[in-house]
Amino acid sequence: MSGVVETSKNNVSQAIAEISELLGDRLSVSLAVCEQHGDDPTWNPGMPPDAVAFVESTEEVQKIVRICAKYETPIIPFGTGTSLEGHISAVNGGICVDLSKMDEILEVNAEDLDCRVQAGVTRKQLNSYLRDTGLFFPIDPGADASLGGMAATRASGTNAVRYGTMRDNVLNLTVVMPDGEIVRTASRARKSSAGYDLTRLIVGSEGTLGIITEVGLKLYGIPESVVAGVCPFETVDACCQATMMAIQMGLPVARIELVDAEHIKAINEYSKLSLDVKPTLFLEFHGTKLGAREQADSFSEIAADLGGGPFETATREEDRAKLWQARHDAFWATVHVYPDKQRLSTDVCVPISRLAEIVALVQKDMQDNNIYGPIIGHVGDGNFHVIMFCDLDDRQELANVNAVCKRLVENAIAMNGTCTGEHGVGLGKKKYLKAEHGAGLDVMAALKRAIDPKNIMNPGKIISL
Amino acid sequence: MSGVVETSKNNVSQAIAEISELLGDRLSVSLAVCEQHGDDPTWNPGMPPDAVAFVESTEEVQKIVRICAKYETPIIPFGTGTSLEGHISAVNGGICVDLSKMDEILEVNAEDLDCRVQAGVTRKQLNSYLRDTGLFFPIDPGADASLGGMAATRASGTNAVRYGTMRDNVLNLTVVMPDGEIVRTASRARKSSAGYDLTRLIVGSEGTLGIITEVGLKLYGIPESVVAGVCPFETVDACCQATMMAIQMGLPVARIELVDAEHIKAINEYSKLSLDVKPTLFLEFHGTKLGAREQADSFSEIAADLGGGPFETATREEDRAKLWQARHDAFWATVHVYPDKQRLSTDVCVPISRLAEIVALVQKDMQDNNIYGPIIGHVGDGNFHVIMFCDLDDRQELANVNAVCKRLVENAIAMNGTCTGEHGVGLGKKKYLKAEHGAGLDVMAALKRAIDPKNIMNPGKIISL
Repeated sequence: MSGVVETSKNNVSQAIAEISELLGDRLSVSLAVCEQHGDDPTWNPGMPPDAVAFVESTEEVQKIVRICAKYETPIIPFGTGTSLEGHISAVNGGICVDLSKMDEILEVNAEDLDCRVQAGVTRKQLNSYLRDTGLFFPIDPGADASLGGMAATRASGTNAVRYGTMRDNVLNLTVVMPDGEIVRTASRARKSSAGYDLTRLIVGSEGTLGIITEVGLKLYGIPESVVAGVCPFETVDACCQATMMAIQMGLPVARIELVDAEHIKAINEYSKLSLDVKPTLFLEFHGTKLGAREQADSFSEIAADLGGGPFETATREEDRAKLWQARHDAFWATVHVYPDKQRLSTDVCVPISRLAEIVALVQKDMQDNNIYGPIIGHVGDGNFHVIMFCDLDDRQELANVNAVCKRLVENAIAMNGTCTGEHGVGLGKKKYLKAEHGAGLDVMAALKRAIDPKNIMNPGKIISL
Repeated sequence: MSGVVETSKNNVSQAIAEISELLGDRLSVSLAVCEQHGDDPTWNPGMPPDAVAFVESTEEVQKIVRICAKYETPIIPFGTGTSLEGHISAVNGGICVDLSKMDEILEVNAEDLDCRVQAGVTRKQLNSYLRDTGLFFPIDPGADASLGGMAATRASGTNAVRYGTMRDNVLNLTVVMPDGEIVRTASRARKSSAGYDLTRLIVGSEGTLGIITEVGLKLYGIPESVVAGVCPFETVDACCQATMMAIQMGLPVARIELVDAEHIKAINEYSKLSLDVKPTLFLEFHGTKLGAREQADSFSEIAADLGGGPFETATREEDRAKLWQARHDAFWATVHVYPDKQRLSTDVCVPISRLAEIVALVQKDMQDNNIYGPIIGHVGDGNFHVIMFCDLDDRQELANVNAVCKRLVENAIAMNGTCTGEHGVGLGKKKYLKAEHGAGLDVMAALKRAIDPKNIMNPGKIISL
């Protein structure tokens, strides 16, 4: 094809024909494949794309984007499909770009504590590759997500209180922009004042401004000593108070996770443990042998002052691994409590001084509405999840769950917090952005229009144009 | 005035008349005031604005922006005038908005480790206000800059290696956008995935996308123990090697600053000290009593392995203050070496593994060209400054200095670094952005056009439209 091409709007079959020529059998239009790529583990409305492209290079993504731009066909990037707010739902159809075959670790610069990976590399893959270098990548959202997807959704997780989120740990990105230009957002320098922060613009943009194909990341030395432990408290409030005190006194906790009593009960059954069925903090401290122990001792004192404890610690790797596996299994553990119900996993984040209050509010709200909703949280950041169980055929229960969720978000925003600490906006949180951002939402829309004037990049997510 | 107004392009006298009505004698057209507001301490070409508005509130800034938007009159924000790349030069004339009277500390939320200040509050003012709370704000670019200006230029300085830059420490901003809308970029939550990162878009935008009027900042607990010290080495290379080893082994240094022998000589004279005239690292460690001492001891070992030392430390606050005052005075100390010459202070930042190499390259280049150019650096980040002395009337020397500076930047970019680690772009570094960002520069231009279509916000800085 050459010369000027008359384009017809969103001619998806023409786009599929041209991409098929490019990828051969790496373009699938099988309904099963398409459905699997358009639906996430939540009850956000899934919608299959018209085709799924299994790409192998930035240049292939560039060619696909150019074809889609020509036909104004939507493009939805896909990593591991573990996002939780309907991010991958192809609401206007189009081409899903599956990056999982782009799974090469391109470079590890041990002396600079950084690396560069293709977007489909998962965090566990990276850490297992790094094992012999003495380095690790800390961000851990639970799921073994792709690093491109984690950047796109500004993921964080249990370690964020110490190491930050993807916002803080992405050094630079390679992005295919909606016009097909390939942009490298920044150099490998640790800091720069050389113009607008394109890296941070793309991190958290959920595929609506471009497709991330490579990710430069900060790495960290594996700490000399790691102390992990669990500490039960009488009340959720006491857990929150202990968290606040630890943060306020500058204790450099690496993880501090709240698991409520409902969750502990489920975990005990699922993971064959015998933890006290009480609101519990799971903690981890990183440092020198002396330093990590000193931190753990300081926390012990805080806990005792609040009537909590005993703070039981483990330093052996297998014991720590078992403990964190139990924490990560918390979500799955609860599934078995009401196996026939669906689960709405939502998250908010507030200033830590308001944490105890908002947790109490949502607990009471759920109790008043007869909803089973365990709470689990990265409380060092003021961020927590509520996993509400619901029989989707029970319209009253569904309405109640949605209403509780809405009040939770409204309370978070009223407390100068955010409607989502780490899950992202996708489809699920769009309706709250005006309340949270006000005129800022218009700025976001202006950015989207400027970068993606044809609205082909994951349309309908974050912002409707 | 009401109804539809016919606008004439850049009718600055009309804009001045309307702003004058608003501010009375807080709008100055005095040549002395205008000249002082259009020229920075460098030899970037200064240009006075047509008037200077001393504003007192976000709402006043909003009104001024609306007037300027109507007449397409340029607006240049001004904090303390200590930026170093011609940021405040009114290249197209217009109104300078001086925010120094907006110096109120609006709230300190000690329990959340955050605060909110008006943009004109300086960092020293904030820290002296915080003294009794046990908290501090770490970012320290040397000058007692305004926090709005520091956010606008993505400032950092000696503490960045431990605490990050303004990118990492601004929680949220209040910004008057080019259309006069007031945007609050984010909540007080420590993390959020709720849409595009407007905070990071504005941080480092140098007044080209809007005027920052309020700044929300992270605070930190004053460490229990601080150990500071100086450690001489035989060569700059050994200093760089020691820095690399400390960073690579994960030593949480709070400051690690390279001062070359030329600087030490000047400091000894200026600050009446008797430091060894050798390349020297100035260091600081924060932690518990035990932890800070453990860190200092680890560094001592590194230094000894590289033939450096002795590492002499101080823990008493007055001794530490004297030491850091000497480090901060380094710039002024060198002025006295060639009092009749001007100084070009430039900065670049590279991956730390390339630090020793690029420092050696620029030192040799200056030697070959007979330029006196002390080097000083935040080497833990791979960031350093070269202060080149020049007789501006000596055209050959000026050409040589500019050529050395150009080669330094080109080397930094070739090493996958950046043309500026912390000074910003302004006028001085614009010419290097294409080489550093490639197609990314077009994305920056698209952002600028989308947010500021009339190009009234600090026009000519970062990007020419």
